[in-house]
Amino acid sequence: MTDMRVSGQDYKAGCPPVDGEMLEDHGAAPEDGDDQVDPWSVSSSSAKGVDYDKLIVRFGSSKIDQELVDRIARVTGKTPHRFLRRGVFFSHRDMHQILDAFEKQKSFYLYTGRGPSSEAMHVGHLIPFIFTKWLQDVFDVPLVIQMTDDEKYLWKDLSLDECHRYAVENARDIIACGFDVNKTFIFSDLDYMGASPAFYRNVVKVQKHVTFNQVKGIFGFTDSDCIGKISFPAIQAAPSFSSSFPQIFGERTDVQCLIPCAIDQDPYFRMTRDVAPRIGYPKPALLHSTFFPALQGAQTKMSASEANSSIFLTDSAKQIKNKINKHAFSGGKDTVEEHRKCGGNPDMDVSFMYLSFFLEDDDQLEKIRQDYSSGALLTGELKKCLIETLQPMIAAHQERRRLVTDEIVQQFMSPRKLHFNC
Amino acid sequence: MTDMRVSGQDYKAGCPPVDGEMLEDHGAAPEDGDDQVDPWSVSSSSAKGVDYDKLIVRFGSSKIDQELVDRIARVTGKTPHRFLRRGVFFSHRDMHQILDAFEKQKSFYLYTGRGPSSEAMHVGHLIPFIFTKWLQDVFDVPLVIQMTDDEKYLWKDLSLDECHRYAVENARDIIACGFDVNKTFIFSDLDYMGASPAFYRNVVKVQKHVTFNQVKGIFGFTDSDCIGKISFPAIQAAPSFSSSFPQIFGERTDVQCLIPCAIDQDPYFRMTRDVAPRIGYPKPALLHSTFFPALQGAQTKMSASEANSSIFLTDSAKQIKNKINKHAFSGGKDTVEEHRKCGGNPDMDVSFMYLSFFLEDDDQLEKIRQDYSSGALLTGELKKCLIETLQPMIAAHQERRRLVTDEIVQQFMSPRKLHFNC
Repeated sequence: MTDMRVSGQDYKAGCPPVDGEMLEDHGAAPEDGDDQVDPWSVSSSSAKGVDYDKLIVRFGSSKIDQELVDRIARVTGKTPHRFLRRGVFFSHRDMHQILDAFEKQKSFYLYTGRGPSSEAMHVGHLIPFIFTKWLQDVFDVPLVIQMTDDEKYLWKDLSLDECHRYAVENARDIIACGFDVNKTFIFSDLDYMGASPAFYRNVVKVQKHVTFNQVKGIFGFTDSDCIGKISFPAIQAAPSFSSSFPQIFGERTDVQCLIPCAIDQDPYFRMTRDVAPRIGYPKPALLHSTFFPALQGAQTKMSASEANSSIFLTDSAKQIKNKINKHAFSGGKDTVEEHRKCGGNPDMDVSFMYLSFFLEDDDQLEKIRQDYSSGALLTGELKKCLIETLQPMIAAHQERRRLVTDEIVQQFMSPRKLHFNC
Repeated sequence: MTDMRVSGQDYKAGCPPVDGEMLEDHGAAPEDGDDQVDPWSVSSSSAKGVDYDKLIVRFGSSKIDQELVDRIARVTGKTPHRFLRRGVFFSHRDMHQILDAFEKQKSFYLYTGRGPSSEAMHVGHLIPFIFTKWLQDVFDVPLVIQMTDDEKYLWKDLSLDECHRYAVENARDIIACGFDVNKTFIFSDLDYMGASPAFYRNVVKVQKHVTFNQVKGIFGFTDSDCIGKISFPAIQAAPSFSSSFPQIFGERTDVQCLIPCAIDQDPYFRMTRDVAPRIGYPKPALLHSTFFPALQGAQTKMSASEANSSIFLTDSAKQIKNKINKHAFSGGKDTVEEHRKCGGNPDMDVSFMYLSFFLEDDDQLEKIRQDYSSGALLTGELKKCLIETLQPMIAAHQERRRLVTDEIVQQFMSPRKLHFNC
């Protein structure tokens, strides 16, 4: 036990511990009435959704400000993705460090993931993948995508085979986002753990350096939780270290990792960043996204388990139209007359929120905002605009997914060398 | 969480829980003054060592009585091993069930293991392997041997590479015991976890069905323990299920397992037996051995970390002689005159205890007991007898070990098909 240097150090999520090293990553304690944001639930009492500025303070991360967006544009020579222009990715850790190194020809790799709890993925699930694909394209770096089928088995009432099947089915949707097969490795934990001694070694390394007290503080685990849940965070941490993928990085243990993910996954990576220096690895950098709101409103995120809260990637044009018309929470007024007179509130309108995720044209989006606010654009017209944006987008996704054969899935999911210029 | 049927059920080692299923495996609570016996320490206040009859009651196992020894002789058609004749293996769980099935031509497999905490193995470490080899020979069954290098990394101040190297070095000593390469698979956890999705699947299955409350009760873990220790018991449990070794057992998930081990490992397998029916597997049967006493006396077991408490497999004939003459605790009297008059006490004499482990001839052993008790045999003569038993035994072991090449180790440690008649 002599090198269990963290043993006995307690810290709660958001509570600054005494160790200065840890302080960096951990902000202020949550207060009553604060939004709830952890890997298993997200809720807010405000119709505008989670207060993300407050979350940055609570989590101790940094805001993605205009300066950083401009710098990404400068370094890559590309127009920043609309998710950066519009604050969908709003928070980061160490992104400047990634760019400093990149400017000195030091490469990095991307890591993101998905918990495959069902076959059905919805449009909200695409956010990190759409953005990660853009990052892969503009930085020309390798990418690893973890499918946490073991996690879903531990948390849900599902069999191992079901979880594994969902992992493979979800991988099809992810591949359909257009990732480069020469630069992308998608893995099921259930498969890769049993195929890579290097991965297991990093899992055990992390497991040695994190106590139950710590995961209790970070994730709220209790004594009644199964030991699988308690040790799982190490499995989500391990892909943050390049030595988990010797087939890609060879002997290199120092290739830095950049993790684009929704902010609710941050607790895993706060833990990872605490452990990294103690096991001799660089801390992963992070880019955090906001949540994708449910059709019913931004108080909660879109959920695959509630059919009417979500637009699924398998929905037909007609289903998309009906769901939006019937369920999308409106920021408009009760009557046409009142709406024309007072205007609607785009900040509470789910259709407008969705458009801000998916409509590429900034000017067009701004015009919609102004017209809706002034009352010139009615709720029905706004919804029509969203329907006409989503229908072709999802049809195109379905078409690309149809072309993802078993062989292509197999290729993406085989541990192998990737194109990587270190 | 709906199928986490054990969630919230607390039980302490030795405390009978409410569930009748579990009651079977768990005896009475330990009382003050009871011997301490768990996977990390063994101690007794009596010079005769641990009170094994009491331990059977506490652990809720069954005594290996004369009837069972006779039955093993009848079923195998072989003279029972001296460890059975002399109560070295003294306790069991479900051994009659193994024999019932064996009589109906239903085979089983053997599973034992070792925690490789150093290169140095001592004679005490051989006990389970000597007996397991005999079981393999007389029952003609496959055997898996787990080297828990991951456990040693988690518990000790050692690197992963050191633990893995010890696993391979210890495997050499184990192979030198004479196991049949066609029927024996030796594996390092660090290697096999990363080579077998089936093994990891069983680990996760066990991890889902055991709570922190349970491992706290069974192993005494605390909130300050690392999450690796907390989840490790599942890794020692998984080889008890034949589906962890598809290369040996194909699709069969119902081949029963018999585990010969020292009684201090029983907590792991009490836990395993609780979990087994809930994940659809047969419970492993067990054969428990007593501890091999330290040279200084039976209050504690031989320890590899205290050089003078142990006779190592690397000791020279001279070292063996010196250690026994200098350190072996004597049950004799203070003076020759007194000893001749009153006789010695073989039950407290470490040299006599060692002879009862290693001297094959029952009549010769009984004569030594009588002569020592009567005073006809002096302590020096008894020690000489032990020295002359151990010196050739260890020299022969060293010679067999010398012949274990890297290729042979590699062969034993490769996942592969074994001879198995189901």
